[in-house]
Amino acid sequence: MKIVSVDPFYLRMPEITSAADGTQDTLLVRIQTDEGIEGWGECDASPLVSIAVYCCPMSHGNIINIRTSLIGETLDSPEDILRLSAKVLRNGLDIQQIHHAYSGAEIALWDIMGKKLEKPIYSLLAEMTDTPQKSHPKLPYASVLFGDTPEDTYQIANGLQEKGYQAAKFGWGPMGKHGEENDIALVRAAREGMGSDNQIMIDAGVVWGTDYETAFDRAAVFSEFSPTWLEEPLAPDAVDAYRSLKSKNPTLSIAAGEGSSTYRMAEDIIVNGDIDYVQIDAGRIGGIYHSFQVRLLAEQNSIQYVNHTFKSHLSLAAALHVFATNPDFNLLEYPAAGSELSDCIVKNPFQIDSDGLVRLKDKPGLGVEVDIEGIKLYYKPVRIHVDSETILDQPSL
Amino acid sequence: MKIVSVDPFYLRMPEITSAADGTQDTLLVRIQTDEGIEGWGECDASPLVSIAVYCCPMSHGNIINIRTSLIGETLDSPEDILRLSAKVLRNGLDIQQIHHAYSGAEIALWDIMGKKLEKPIYSLLAEMTDTPQKSHPKLPYASVLFGDTPEDTYQIANGLQEKGYQAAKFGWGPMGKHGEENDIALVRAAREGMGSDNQIMIDAGVVWGTDYETAFDRAAVFSEFSPTWLEEPLAPDAVDAYRSLKSKNPTLSIAAGEGSSTYRMAEDIIVNGDIDYVQIDAGRIGGIYHSFQVRLLAEQNSIQYVNHTFKSHLSLAAALHVFATNPDFNLLEYPAAGSELSDCIVKNPFQIDSDGLVRLKDKPGLGVEVDIEGIKLYYKPVRIHVDSETILDQPSL
Repeated sequence: MKIVSVDPFYLRMPEITSAADGTQDTLLVRIQTDEGIEGWGECDASPLVSIAVYCCPMSHGNIINIRTSLIGETLDSPEDILRLSAKVLRNGLDIQQIHHAYSGAEIALWDIMGKKLEKPIYSLLAEMTDTPQKSHPKLPYASVLFGDTPEDTYQIANGLQEKGYQAAKFGWGPMGKHGEENDIALVRAAREGMGSDNQIMIDAGVVWGTDYETAFDRAAVFSEFSPTWLEEPLAPDAVDAYRSLKSKNPTLSIAAGEGSSTYRMAEDIIVNGDIDYVQIDAGRIGGIYHSFQVRLLAEQNSIQYVNHTFKSHLSLAAALHVFATNPDFNLLEYPAAGSELSDCIVKNPFQIDSDGLVRLKDKPGLGVEVDIEGIKLYYKPVRIHVDSETILDQPSL
Repeated sequence: MKIVSVDPFYLRMPEITSAADGTQDTLLVRIQTDEGIEGWGECDASPLVSIAVYCCPMSHGNIINIRTSLIGETLDSPEDILRLSAKVLRNGLDIQQIHHAYSGAEIALWDIMGKKLEKPIYSLLAEMTDTPQKSHPKLPYASVLFGDTPEDTYQIANGLQEKGYQAAKFGWGPMGKHGEENDIALVRAAREGMGSDNQIMIDAGVVWGTDYETAFDRAAVFSEFSPTWLEEPLAPDAVDAYRSLKSKNPTLSIAAGEGSSTYRMAEDIIVNGDIDYVQIDAGRIGGIYHSFQVRLLAEQNSIQYVNHTFKSHLSLAAALHVFATNPDFNLLEYPAAGSELSDCIVKNPFQIDSDGLVRLKDKPGLGVEVDIEGIKLYYKPVRIHVDSETILDQPSL
């Protein structure tokens, strides 16, 4: 099979706010082959910046765009994906955004390969790495933002409980911005709204920067409400601060890692930051295989791998294939308050089964189907000209 | 003072090759204030990808472009630069390319501040951090690519010696690609061409990836020719491989770090990679102050800080201010085989004095003046449209 096209598509809602809501826009990547098989992937990145990585003019041998690296290439086996990933990353050595941008393409390559070989991606990964073959269900935790007030947060939490969620994560928004008392009230509201039988997680949204003392203090006062973890109390690259926090033996488990744009960043925060849960976005770290390597590292280090997903169920599918075969990694970040955009991207989203769990179906590739008619409503074609040269001029979908 | 404009300018040569020659294009950033003071900076990055970071539409609160973060802001003191850097990086938390792109703007902010306060940037840094005030000369090493063959390399080296260079670094090209014998012949040619009294450095251009055994073996056979260091034998983020290499006690010093896009990456390769020389590009890591922090870390760790500069003397100026005040950090990467483009960017490049050393002059700001007429010849205005919206439409210079 030869790769004949590689196309990034910028989709966005009519209005974008500064809330920490990643479902307001997105970047999908479609790859087509000469055998008529096509694959799709989704990036969690700035769409325009990542589109530039698909089409930027060559600067020298270390700045060569993704299309140049992929179009015309051979794709016949999972090993080819690894070879192409190495090529893309080597050609983009001096493009910082290369991992964010390439993630969607890498996921699309796995989607194609699964369709070609008529196997789900998790099976291909298992065969390639000699790891367990069986897919296991996950407990979805509804991933939502805090309300602006404790009262709003209670209403959100209560609504999720009424919908039957057994776990929910609350993040960003007012957390850490109005003092300890308000922070505690927010966590109390989340707990009371979800009830005592369900899990809650608290996502501080990097609000304390490098201030691990405050993070430690908050973990102490939050522990009364028994959250499963305290997530990203510190900046993504504040590795020493994470280690300092952990060395004080906080009363809560610490989760982090969604900011990992490279395997090394994940390895660094696991090994040197000493975190308890590592959260990886396959749409940022360079795709499925880099995420899978972090999963393996988490297994070696006896910590729990969790997906980071705040996009559509296209991203959720990619995320699930990475760790479906490890039953101990039982939690799944499940976008529960998406936009009209993120809700329309796939025709067959992951439903929560009657036992409250989410399962991969044994379909080839990602196992989800992009809704072309749905996404047309949100598609924004991009044109880029450098002087008199047209670098990109996207057609209608 | 208020910031009134922030403009990235894409400059390129008519022809671009895949050689590892960073002088074939560049991205300059100009910032203007309401007091009529303007500053300039240069990024070592993909120009188009980084331009997108200046103008990309907001995706949410963690993807906000650089112009939005800076225009209209107050700039009255060096502390304001740190505040603005924190704002830009926080607003760009989920833009991987943010550091590459912001570097040019950060350098421009220091240039403005130096002009406003009528002091060179190194003085502002010294005052702010209570570190030594005096600027010291550096020994420039000509930074060139290996010739395609040992014979070509000999001619290049001999030409540099005849020009009076007391040190020269040879890198990339054929190194590591045609077996040990050819690698040795290349290093021998560099040594013979430069003569026994001068310093040579060998830059392997990340060619051995994670293969630290080969890197160790090459260091052993190269040591006969007494290079000052072996640079980037491994991939930029192969931190464990660097540590494994160093743990074998190689016969040469190991240099690395130019790929550091964040302070943490530099810290990681210093602390965990155990390198001997750290090479930082102020045009990649987020500008002058982040580079200065790495310099301080190098001092704490008793290793040598060296600039990475493969652009114009605008970049060289920014690089020099970072470590001018430490006389022990005595080596300066000096672009010695630039393009017509990189040679035309500043009116007053750094000459090598009669003692073979390079000195900063005590001029305000960066101390170099951009040649507007010169760069006009290479300027490529960019236009970007997202659907019917014009995101960027650059005027003539």
